[in-house]
Amino acid sequence: MRWHDLPHHDGSELYSPITAVEETDVRRPRVRVPDTFGTVSSVWLRVVVDGEPQFLPMHRIEAPIACDDAQWWEGAFTVANPVTSYRFLLNAQRGRAFWLNGEGIDEVEPLDALDYRATTFPAPPEWATQQTMYQIFPDRFARSAAASSRPIPAWAIAASWDDEVVHRGPDTPRQFFGGDLDGVAERLDHLETLGVTLIYLTPFFPAQSNHRYDASTFDRVDATLGGDEALIRLVEAAHSRGIRVIGDLTTNHTGDAHEWFRAARGNPSAAESDFYYWNDEAHMDYVAWYGVPSLPKLNWNSRELRRRFIEGPDSVVAKWLLPPYGLDGWRIDVANMTGRQGEDDLNTLVQRTVRRTMDEVAPGSVLFAESTNDTSRDFDGSGWHAPMSYSAFTRPLWHWLRQPEAAPVHHYGIPYAETPAASAESFARAFRRFSTPMPWAVRSLAMNAIDTHDTPRFAERADAAAQLVAAGLSFTLPGTPVIFAGDEFGLRGSDGEASRTPLPWGSDAALATAYARLAAARAASPALRTGALRWLHAGADAVAFVRERDDSAELVVACRSAAEISLPVASLAGRTVDEFAPPAVALGDVTLDRAADRLRWRTSGPAFGVWSLRTAAAPSAAATTAARATRREALESAHA
Amino acid sequence: MRWHDLPHHDGSELYSPITAVEETDVRRPRVRVPDTFGTVSSVWLRVVVDGEPQFLPMHRIEAPIACDDAQWWEGAFTVANPVTSYRFLLNAQRGRAFWLNGEGIDEVEPLDALDYRATTFPAPPEWATQQTMYQIFPDRFARSAAASSRPIPAWAIAASWDDEVVHRGPDTPRQFFGGDLDGVAERLDHLETLGVTLIYLTPFFPAQSNHRYDASTFDRVDATLGGDEALIRLVEAAHSRGIRVIGDLTTNHTGDAHEWFRAARGNPSAAESDFYYWNDEAHMDYVAWYGVPSLPKLNWNSRELRRRFIEGPDSVVAKWLLPPYGLDGWRIDVANMTGRQGEDDLNTLVQRTVRRTMDEVAPGSVLFAESTNDTSRDFDGSGWHAPMSYSAFTRPLWHWLRQPEAAPVHHYGIPYAETPAASAESFARAFRRFSTPMPWAVRSLAMNAIDTHDTPRFAERADAAAQLVAAGLSFTLPGTPVIFAGDEFGLRGSDGEASRTPLPWGSDAALATAYARLAAARAASPALRTGALRWLHAGADAVAFVRERDDSAELVVACRSAAEISLPVASLAGRTVDEFAPPAVALGDVTLDRAADRLRWRTSGPAFGVWSLRTAAAPSAAATTAARATRREALESAHA
Repeated sequence: MRWHDLPHHDGSELYSPITAVEETDVRRPRVRVPDTFGTVSSVWLRVVVDGEPQFLPMHRIEAPIACDDAQWWEGAFTVANPVTSYRFLLNAQRGRAFWLNGEGIDEVEPLDALDYRATTFPAPPEWATQQTMYQIFPDRFARSAAASSRPIPAWAIAASWDDEVVHRGPDTPRQFFGGDLDGVAERLDHLETLGVTLIYLTPFFPAQSNHRYDASTFDRVDATLGGDEALIRLVEAAHSRGIRVIGDLTTNHTGDAHEWFRAARGNPSAAESDFYYWNDEAHMDYVAWYGVPSLPKLNWNSRELRRRFIEGPDSVVAKWLLPPYGLDGWRIDVANMTGRQGEDDLNTLVQRTVRRTMDEVAPGSVLFAESTNDTSRDFDGSGWHAPMSYSAFTRPLWHWLRQPEAAPVHHYGIPYAETPAASAESFARAFRRFSTPMPWAVRSLAMNAIDTHDTPRFAERADAAAQLVAAGLSFTLPGTPVIFAGDEFGLRGSDGEASRTPLPWGSDAALATAYARLAAARAASPALRTGALRWLHAGADAVAFVRERDDSAELVVACRSAAEISLPVASLAGRTVDEFAPPAVALGDVTLDRAADRLRWRTSGPAFGVWSLRTAAAPSAAATTAARATRREALESAHA
Repeated sequence: MRWHDLPHHDGSELYSPITAVEETDVRRPRVRVPDTFGTVSSVWLRVVVDGEPQFLPMHRIEAPIACDDAQWWEGAFTVANPVTSYRFLLNAQRGRAFWLNGEGIDEVEPLDALDYRATTFPAPPEWATQQTMYQIFPDRFARSAAASSRPIPAWAIAASWDDEVVHRGPDTPRQFFGGDLDGVAERLDHLETLGVTLIYLTPFFPAQSNHRYDASTFDRVDATLGGDEALIRLVEAAHSRGIRVIGDLTTNHTGDAHEWFRAARGNPSAAESDFYYWNDEAHMDYVAWYGVPSLPKLNWNSRELRRRFIEGPDSVVAKWLLPPYGLDGWRIDVANMTGRQGEDDLNTLVQRTVRRTMDEVAPGSVLFAESTNDTSRDFDGSGWHAPMSYSAFTRPLWHWLRQPEAAPVHHYGIPYAETPAASAESFARAFRRFSTPMPWAVRSLAMNAIDTHDTPRFAERADAAAQLVAAGLSFTLPGTPVIFAGDEFGLRGSDGEASRTPLPWGSDAALATAYARLAAARAASPALRTGALRWLHAGADAVAFVRERDDSAELVVACRSAAEISLPVASLAGRTVDEFAPPAVALGDVTLDRAADRLRWRTSGPAFGVWSLRTAAAPSAAATTAARATRREALESAHA
């Protein structure tokens, strides 16, 4: 079945409207069934209530998009449990019945784990869904004048700004370029030009490494970054430009030089004694993250640890959100392992406590959390707002857009023998699969990074044209677009260490204009930020989808190579596209023309484009009814 | 891809051997890769440890089945968390890589919810996996002489044994046929003839209905069934024949005539006050199961409720397992809703507490639990031993084996417009999908009922020949075969009320011989009880699979109608079948012949057969190595 023939639902406002403010626990999900799917005699909503499925009838409604010829069905249910899963049953002809869930349609009954999910947890702050995020690894971003006069830490090996990154061996974490927070503040012009509105700083606490994920305290900003005052200066400077800033916390572990760990180790009577997992009575041998001795694992059974770190206004979590620092939120490191150790699973406790503290001391702050793989289990909206993940977007994107001749690179730990030769369809299937089980509010905020400080640079496996296709998707699919600092310079790096290159200030930020155009297009379009995601095409080399609201919509086309995509005009759901008007964004060579009732895009190589769709003026109700009746008769006689 | 070309893994001993008793937390999973799947360069084991995937290399091993030409790979992992999920990555040629999990293979990365699962929870008692279960609804099974002299309850409307069952309207729960426990004891000969070894009695507590799921006390056996003494007599008589007996408990609700509810209602200061959910301060208005007033929902937040009902040697759960009653276990009603109500989810607490009490007072007792749909969430082996469900076996079986001309009947609440026209392949896919996420020990015990007291009789939608195909599958797929009392008489009934027909003693139990043959075949075959399940074929009308251990195997063929199945001999994994020897079981017209390296089964209508496979004598190691080298060379040159 072609993608544009599939029935569609998602958690966006168009397909799941909240119609009355007083009914926040009521959902009115809609399903759009294209005429080309075939006749559907009834549609049922299946909701799991207190552990048991209930089937609720849905009814036909007028299409909420003027002139859309598809069947629209609507139902209603109460979100009875904090996380309520639902899907649909479509009765078609000749005894065929289809389940519709996050995997598409299936005639075999699906597992509930693939259902859509609704929750009553508060949504992320409104502002958060409208950001262009920029990830900064402070040691490598920019160095202020003051930086060169500071003593370097004892563990560090000084490097010049244009040295090669040492990406293997014991010196890797010790190579010290000396970027600092005032260096970031000095480059805000660059960020503003790119359209960045949210800076994500990897850790700024003192540590024993250049990445600082091995904090030695959470009480102050590393002096080599400029100390507390530099953070205050940076946040103030950013805020004055309307740019927000979030920090990075390690809730899974601390460094072995952390003051808590030093107090606890070898001292079973210390107040911090139960902050870690010990393998012996003397509290010398301890559990460490992946067995790396510098990263002792935190034990969240400890009430005192929770009190100091995550619970209430005196906690670490709270301190940096409050004046005089005023961070706008956190990104949590290794969130998927946090609180999990053998028989312990305190992950839910930790994430909800962090969130409660943030909601209490800094309402409107945002909480991202690293979860490298399947995020459906941990991201129900009760704690972490949204994931920084690689499963839904990053990895499938790499596998599709990589150049065949590109050298094999690492796959975030997946031991593929070769880089999988994936199609655009694989990308779309993966995005759909890993996205749908999360509530829409979570999915809409999820970080869509094409690369990060933990991966190779995207440019390592694809040319600049393909990188812009990747970036285009990160700005137009549901989620938060993320630029890893340096991508706009076309930086390369073959792994998650080599990618941490100092930024080549003074050289040409060749891709900056394209990034800025994408950021501007997204900022200008409610549909690109909040609209439903309906796939129209996913083949070998190209995808096409619409982001749609009732009042506006954008059509996105992305190709890996020379391709031709043809779509029926009807798949635009009653809207039209002006093939003579310039597209909202065009990166690469892509042309659109129309022949009768079909649209055709042609590209000569990697290309990405966004077209704003025109919503037809609603015809008179009488005209609509008459037209529909005629059409229905025609269809019924065709199917008879 | 054909089913017999697929790589295979499951949790059975052949594919997941425990090689050293002292390593109970180590698993050594194996994957069999047929030559016809294509060349595989490496296989990796993906295990989620403390929330993060780890990839562990697997290595080639000699096939554990003599003369099997397939590639076998083995890995090892420690079950680090109480429930550990795992799957496999197979690197094939030309950049293709396949994930292998409970859904089969996929080139797009799967969700963890579809993984295989290993746990360190104690397995169900050994005896439990070897039973043929017989479900008895006491009011309708048999009436002893004493029964007719007992007064009938006030709520009841007396019926004669050969009256029609009233299956709609207010009299349905009141129609009282007066079967009793001595009636059951008198019919043990019949059960023994059938091969039954485990009786499952639906509730025997006093109640206000013929089904007794609305208990008015858990303290005594209903006097109309013969009281406590009749239960003691029945259990003793059954035990003396080697037949075990389990009871049925409602942990989700009680009846509104229950002594706890009567004490609690309107009396907020009662000791039982917090046993239920109240909607008002006066404790008059209460939460009931599906809003049915006679079934007030239990509130498991109550410690006192837990103490009285499920916790420790003085609890209800314990009492009936101890002398003088000595039940062999429980089936739990509405287990999937138990403890779930709005924001509350105490399901895990309840199931683990019930299990702990049983393990404490009656080690070796068994714990089944009703979970009508997706069981993957609740059945991890920590509490309930295994489900009584409809998702993996019963419903998919109905949809496949129903006769096209059969009247539409209900589908356990799923509002299909027509009975889905499902293929044998749909059946196999559904069985695989709903089975695999449960640990193997759970899956191996799951009740495979073709119908129950809550469904139409299978005979309602298929003829006797098709019913035997269904029964054949219930005895040969992993799980506990279940006969709903009366199926052996070919009883009919269009819904879950009409199916509760009094047994027509004296008439011909026409299918009894076939059931007995199936029970005997399963009892005689370790492979049918504990062997791996490897599907060989699943098409429009027929399935074929092997149940295999290292030392023995059975091949099963089941057809809905006239069909021909052809399979390569190589799919038997080095074993052979003697086409001239009689099959272990043959129900209906099914013949087997061989042509060169293929086997062919032909049927003229619904048919079911089991063939014991002959395991080849292991050739000498030198001969094997030489033969393999030749074969590998041939394959390599073919793929070059």
